[in-house]
Amino acid sequence: MSAPLDASKLKITKTETPKDPLPNDKLVFGQSFTDHILEVDWTKEEGWAAPTIKPYHNFSMDPATCVLHYSFELFEGLKAYRDSNGKIRTFRPDKNMERMNRTAKRAALPTFDGNEFLKLLDQFLLLEEKFVPQGKGYSLYLRPTLIGSSIGLGVSTPTKAKLYLIASPVGPYFGSDFKPVSLEATDYAVRAWPKGVGSYKLGANYVSCIEPQAEAAKRGHSQNLWLFGESGEITEVGAMNVFFAFENDDGTKELVTPPLDGMILPGVTRDSTIQLCVEKLPSDWKVNERKLTIYEVMERSAKGQLIEAFGTGTAAIVAPIDNIEFKGKQIEVPCKAGSSGEIAKQVNDWIQKIQYGDEEFKDWSRVAA
Amino acid sequence: MSAPLDASKLKITKTETPKDPLPNDKLVFGQSFTDHILEVDWTKEEGWAAPTIKPYHNFSMDPATCVLHYSFELFEGLKAYRDSNGKIRTFRPDKNMERMNRTAKRAALPTFDGNEFLKLLDQFLLLEEKFVPQGKGYSLYLRPTLIGSSIGLGVSTPTKAKLYLIASPVGPYFGSDFKPVSLEATDYAVRAWPKGVGSYKLGANYVSCIEPQAEAAKRGHSQNLWLFGESGEITEVGAMNVFFAFENDDGTKELVTPPLDGMILPGVTRDSTIQLCVEKLPSDWKVNERKLTIYEVMERSAKGQLIEAFGTGTAAIVAPIDNIEFKGKQIEVPCKAGSSGEIAKQVNDWIQKIQYGDEEFKDWSRVAA
Repeated sequence: MSAPLDASKLKITKTETPKDPLPNDKLVFGQSFTDHILEVDWTKEEGWAAPTIKPYHNFSMDPATCVLHYSFELFEGLKAYRDSNGKIRTFRPDKNMERMNRTAKRAALPTFDGNEFLKLLDQFLLLEEKFVPQGKGYSLYLRPTLIGSSIGLGVSTPTKAKLYLIASPVGPYFGSDFKPVSLEATDYAVRAWPKGVGSYKLGANYVSCIEPQAEAAKRGHSQNLWLFGESGEITEVGAMNVFFAFENDDGTKELVTPPLDGMILPGVTRDSTIQLCVEKLPSDWKVNERKLTIYEVMERSAKGQLIEAFGTGTAAIVAPIDNIEFKGKQIEVPCKAGSSGEIAKQVNDWIQKIQYGDEEFKDWSRVAA
Repeated sequence: MSAPLDASKLKITKTETPKDPLPNDKLVFGQSFTDHILEVDWTKEEGWAAPTIKPYHNFSMDPATCVLHYSFELFEGLKAYRDSNGKIRTFRPDKNMERMNRTAKRAALPTFDGNEFLKLLDQFLLLEEKFVPQGKGYSLYLRPTLIGSSIGLGVSTPTKAKLYLIASPVGPYFGSDFKPVSLEATDYAVRAWPKGVGSYKLGANYVSCIEPQAEAAKRGHSQNLWLFGESGEITEVGAMNVFFAFENDDGTKELVTPPLDGMILPGVTRDSTIQLCVEKLPSDWKVNERKLTIYEVMERSAKGQLIEAFGTGTAAIVAPIDNIEFKGKQIEVPCKAGSSGEIAKQVNDWIQKIQYGDEEFKDWSRVAA
């Protein structure tokens, strides 16, 4: 009789030592947290226990807990925004729930009803309302996390797990300016592989990204560009999805992002960018999910056909790219709108308007209630 | 001024509630632990702190600790054996230290002087001596672990880390019998890839192994065999390295294991097996590290040239294979020595004699002192 996740069973214990939110100019990504933590424990025998919201606290964890040894851990990242009426909104959180469950299954961790979790998230947001900052670019970063919590060193399916949520008030990810990033194309390390786990939001996909990132930083670049295979397929940029805009010989234009072939993280911002561009870009634009290589980018750049490029992700929304270094050669990427290309600027604007409730688009904005 | 790991700074606090060791027939792999834990904390500013051995205790861990989100975790597995004089021995622990440091570097975690850690390990073993069981096949499983312990959600190099050691008395990994395993060849998922991290002992390499293992179990197999690429390259078996023995057309014989091409974990038992077989097998045997495919195994099996196959790893030493299922076809693998092939049996015997100090071979057995 394995119990499903049931938001109606939530028990809230409020903190007796509430903190004051930091001012916006003191916010550092993922460094300060709100007053509470949402937790739901799971066991193979009993299923999901009653959810709790308690004062933010450390876990007491046996050193043999499976999350510390075999990487039974996965997460989501999304944000809560304060709209002009003071309501708290989240952006397409159903997509995060879908991806989180898909990842949980691959990681042999328990799945759960995403709608029930979103009800819990809403309760959490109403309680932590004061921590959702005012102002464009400011938000409350939400980190749903699922870890294996059984104790023991056998490599096997966890029989205990913990689903939890912590939240951190944040400002713009790359600082206050909308500033383009410079990339180093990485050809000595590969992020993901066909039939591998690159399309899942597993902690396991992140540990191996730090060294290539640090290598790129040594040579003055702020991110690395992941390539795949002999043909130099472009896959992702750092921990973001990536888009390139080209002008064709016949004057038509194309916005390209790599397809979801199992190597690409299915980003919520990626999907939103595609849908918005399909709907809103002028009719001479085509939006294509297709493979593209670093060599195509070099060639199109040389022909003057590279219009712009940008990364997309929840933390930054859009990160304009102004330069790519590959095997010692520089590919300059135009930023026609000043600190970004025109599409990057538009996409950022379109998405922010929906996130902050200034515009409604489909059912993408959820009001916490 | 970053301090190096220094074993001479060890501080020991003994438990006030010592446990009695479990009898051998109650030992389950990695389920019961000794009385103490060895810990060494590291910070970017200070380097390695004074090592401590304290009563086994839970960690107090912030839910935003980086090990829980981005998989900053790696480990080693080795065993301590009681020899006929009552001395405690470890088997090639320098190899574990070498691999652990190589993995730490790739994971952007701090490296350390392996010799200093082995001095600490010896101290730990002398203190926990009563937990090293008597009897062939019984040992104290040792789990050196390194985790990132900085707090925060930014994806970046950890500025704090914890190196620790816990230990679990164990019996034979697959139960008391030397019993062959049946495999399902996995072609719908890949474990590792060129320029990936398959050759590092990262926790990240384990989470994705559970589902293919569970799929194999559904169809009655005890492990899965990892293939790579269109050609069906054989890479590893479950969490072990793998060896195949063939008879050639001219009557000579070949023991084959996949080469260390970046996709294969450089197992200590793998290396020991190669060295022992090169030295001890009759002169009509060749030992080759080379690529081999599931199709070669099928073909050689059909020609009656497949002599035996086995996995190698610290937990099991040797796991004989008696069957491989691939795309619905069965490859029967001979077990000429009854419950295993003859080489598997010999290798197991050679290695055990060195591990338990009945025979000296090179400098492979270290006596704790």
